[in-house]
Amino acid sequence: MKPDQPTTPASGTRLYSFVGGNSGNWRVTRMDPIIGEPLPVADFLQIVPEAVSGASAAWVLRGITSNERYVTRDEKSELVAKQEGLGRPASRCAMLIPIKKSAAWWNLTQDERRKIFEEQSSPIKIGMGFLPAIARRLHHCRDLGPDEPFDFLTWFEFAPENVAAFDDLTAQLRASPEWKYVSRECDIRLERISG
Amino acid sequence: MKPDQPTTPASGTRLYSFVGGNSGNWRVTRMDPIIGEPLPVADFLQIVPEAVSGASAAWVLRGITSNERYVTRDEKSELVAKQEGLGRPASRCAMLIPIKKSAAWWNLTQDERRKIFEEQSSPIKIGMGFLPAIARRLHHCRDLGPDEPFDFLTWFEFAPENVAAFDDLTAQLRASPEWKYVSRECDIRLERISG
Repeated sequence: MKPDQPTTPASGTRLYSFVGGNSGNWRVTRMDPIIGEPLPVADFLQIVPEAVSGASAAWVLRGITSNERYVTRDEKSELVAKQEGLGRPASRCAMLIPIKKSAAWWNLTQDERRKIFEEQSSPIKIGMGFLPAIARRLHHCRDLGPDEPFDFLTWFEFAPENVAAFDDLTAQLRASPEWKYVSRECDIRLERISG
Repeated sequence: MKPDQPTTPASGTRLYSFVGGNSGNWRVTRMDPIIGEPLPVADFLQIVPEAVSGASAAWVLRGITSNERYVTRDEKSELVAKQEGLGRPASRCAMLIPIKKSAAWWNLTQDERRKIFEEQSSPIKIGMGFLPAIARRLHHCRDLGPDEPFDFLTWFEFAPENVAAFDDLTAQLRASPEWKYVSRECDIRLERISG
């Protein structure tokens, strides 16, 4: 086998595994199935910057960061100016929201999806209102392969004093027109125990 | 490894492996490196509707069909009305174009990328002019993982009498503003030997 080599070396991976099980730097404080089938219970979460098999884990969810699908340049500039990164010392609370969207969503064309985003507040604008308090990283799963259980994994980090603001953010997202196309959703709350 | 069955993928998979080597239903008639590093020489191509390791292959390129990123509903309706599927008996010629786009492309926002598409003729409109003669399937690679050698694999099928039209199509694509962002491209011509 002579696998074809990438022309340029990877500058920092884009692929992450979220491993739910008996160990990790994040303790799971709550797991709620919001829509559809729940995930098996896990007490801890470890985030690994590569694909892992997780033989002893309750579950492994994989996702890859990618290019923006909807954000315009003006929105991007505003986001970059306001947002702060993951790993801030004060961010001891986190949430992982795995979601799957319906076939109806994926059969829409780009203009139709963007229009749904704009019908009410777009998720971009909703998130903007909570910057820089809530840091976020979106991972895409759907194009990792044909059998991924979810389409997106969104990871949020925030300080304990922003928990109420965070509940407000998730309530706004779940009330948005886009969320009508969500066919599976889990809500996993966590707190950092080390690192 | 299963035989090449491009028109009826097993269990509706979206993931395909293009295996270049010593066997397959397609004979490679030409391989030209257009931009950047060439692929190793292969005499045959097999298309497998799943991920394969290809232990004895010269190369394996994987790609996944996905949702439309740019097409509007009007364009989609026109495409669906005009296009024909892969696997037509008369389509004994094919071409595989693996391309990689530059970091500059991926750092653009959605509105900027769509604008580049519209600066001249978009690849959607260019392709439309050659329907139904040329059938096409686009596979995405970039979000399969962080180390894929290409970002897209486009597979074209057509009858021998449409070879000249096909050369015209590729010339138009390569002259488009979008193509300035292509950092690697191979041109692989094939003819069907069975199936």
